[in-house]
Amino acid sequence: VHRTKVRIVEDALDANNTIARANREDFDRHGVAVVNLMSAPGAGKTTLLERALAQPLAGVRAGVLEGDVQGSFDADRLAALHVPVTQLNTDPGFGGECHLDANMVRSAMPAVPLSEIDLLVIENVGNLVCPAEFRVGEDARAMVCSVTEGEDKPLKYPLMFRTCELVVINKIDLLPHLEFDLDLFLYHLDQVNTGVARMLVSARTGEGVERWRDWLVSVTQRAAATVA
Amino acid sequence: VHRTKVRIVEDALDANNTIARANREDFDRHGVAVVNLMSAPGAGKTTLLERALAQPLAGVRAGVLEGDVQGSFDADRLAALHVPVTQLNTDPGFGGECHLDANMVRSAMPAVPLSEIDLLVIENVGNLVCPAEFRVGEDARAMVCSVTEGEDKPLKYPLMFRTCELVVINKIDLLPHLEFDLDLFLYHLDQVNTGVARMLVSARTGEGVERWRDWLVSVTQRAAATVA
Repeated sequence: VHRTKVRIVEDALDANNTIARANREDFDRHGVAVVNLMSAPGAGKTTLLERALAQPLAGVRAGVLEGDVQGSFDADRLAALHVPVTQLNTDPGFGGECHLDANMVRSAMPAVPLSEIDLLVIENVGNLVCPAEFRVGEDARAMVCSVTEGEDKPLKYPLMFRTCELVVINKIDLLPHLEFDLDLFLYHLDQVNTGVARMLVSARTGEGVERWRDWLVSVTQRAAATVA
Repeated sequence: VHRTKVRIVEDALDANNTIARANREDFDRHGVAVVNLMSAPGAGKTTLLERALAQPLAGVRAGVLEGDVQGSFDADRLAALHVPVTQLNTDPGFGGECHLDANMVRSAMPAVPLSEIDLLVIENVGNLVCPAEFRVGEDARAMVCSVTEGEDKPLKYPLMFRTCELVVINKIDLLPHLEFDLDLFLYHLDQVNTGVARMLVSARTGEGVERWRDWLVSVTQRAAATVA
């Protein structure tokens, strides 16, 4: 039974990768760089996007695809920024899917104004496990980890921390009020993804947000250079 | 395709429920009450258990079944309390399952000393979506939600908040340092699960932990009364 289950999962991932490549080709055709942004629930993805997109990015027109089980709370927040926001709900699955996969993103693509943007940030469902397992056609994966979550998270969710090229460490304004050992967290992070880029930010105070904005611009430029 | 997928999921849930009932019968035969404890990553489940079990519960011998994708960090923390702790890892699935299901719990049962305990707390994988979808044979479901996660979580993960009979609101020691609107959170909570029991605690300072201990005792007594 176990072997059968693994086989089914592998087939599902193969199918997912095929669709992810098709998504990738469509994004490339429109010259759109794609960031898959992941985190645990409440780590601050939406607030970081609000902060990043409150002012135009240098030479980059951004859009957002919001993945949620239900509702459009985050999309409504971001819509106030005058960037195109598309809502993608996963609840038709039953109880709701805990992640975005390539086919869900594909189904939402007709609603994304690809010809009007240079960068699409896909805000995944808040979850540290399954989102890391499904490519959606992205150029880069980034994750947000809040200092309120504890130092052990890289060890407990290694695939997520390993699959990202950037780890945004958020809510650092709370550090004086926590017993969070940042050095220990970074030690654990390097154990699962040695030397991965990381930045310390506070979406609430704005500290470090300029680096996060710079990173989004650099990913867009890198993708454009690769396609061209 | 969509209808087929829903059917497969329904079949999987049927199978899960059958195994959950078998678990339930085995727990009943041993007179063990079972709590399925769920939360997002880093909400404080393990620290709350450390706090609750640091002193013996009144007339209740407790044990813990630790669900994690990888590693045994939480089990190692709890083992220091001299309660029986069993580790259950979900990673053989591939990348790791994001939840416990009835069959995983069943596979771990031979390693749980059922005849030596009255209460088994199953600490589920940190995730607000799929754990809510799978019964494992529990008497009661409880969840931990940290005030750092934001007021919108009941609306974004309604199944989780709806399926629990107790919501433990943790990290209240941080309230002075957050812009968290507790009244708004409770309003959202009542929108998805009107009147559900809730308690405000700080696992860090110990505030409210006595009520959490009392609840664990009451669930054990209720289960014993039901079986008898």
